[in-house]
Amino acid sequence: MPETFSLHERLAADTFLVADWTYSRVLLMNDARFPWLVLVPRAPGLRDFDDVPQARKSVFLEEIDRASRILRAHVGAEKMNVAALGNMVPQLHVHVVARFAADAAWPAPVWGVGTAVPYAPEAAKALLGALRAM
Amino acid sequence: MPETFSLHERLAADTFLVADWTYSRVLLMNDARFPWLVLVPRAPGLRDFDDVPQARKSVFLEEIDRASRILRAHVGAEKMNVAALGNMVPQLHVHVVARFAADAAWPAPVWGVGTAVPYAPEAAKALLGALRAM
Repeated sequence: MPETFSLHERLAADTFLVADWTYSRVLLMNDARFPWLVLVPRAPGLRDFDDVPQARKSVFLEEIDRASRILRAHVGAEKMNVAALGNMVPQLHVHVVARFAADAAWPAPVWGVGTAVPYAPEAAKALLGALRAM
Repeated sequence: MPETFSLHERLAADTFLVADWTYSRVLLMNDARFPWLVLVPRAPGLRDFDDVPQARKSVFLEEIDRASRILRAHVGAEKMNVAALGNMVPQLHVHVVARFAADAAWPAPVWGVGTAVPYAPEAAKALLGALRAM
């Protein structure tokens, strides 16, 4: 178990950094099909959702809710999907995905559906700017 | 928005009742391929994970963690998947699924994979008894 936090290389490769919050590193999934944030606790050695230490649970939950509110405010959303899966990347990370009945995967979950569509550089820059301002 | 809690008919049809906890109704998904609990807040009008009232968040989170611990203790698990999706059933419900690298969907999520395999009646009875005892 590593003693300091470091982001799993696959999460790093698939996302943009939005911000570091009190407990979580907030990432934007580089897939323009879905408005999709990923929260990674900035603590080493966590795998499952219930591994979050008791003293950090409320701040983590508040950050998950905050990510939902930001996405909802920014893009609207018919439904938010919130999930800690980690079958591919064992480091604990929570997906917060804004879903629409017209999106590329609805009503199925987004994971493993089709191929990610990377943001155009200007679109990523604009979206990251907007998310950071919130 | 209904004023009293009632379980969505699809959740009722797909599951067995395990127990009512302080905040959640605990259900066992009737799919023998995956050890899979579903927690439904016993409160009306909730859709998204961040709809849980502030005063109930900590008890709900504790119940989610408890469901993870029970499944892990009962069946072992290489990974727990915890997710609030609700694209099909809008009533807020949280899936807690014990995953194994040899299971029928790994490493993909379980939703929408193949067809549910109902428990044999005796197997369901035994599993429900064991879960209730925990």
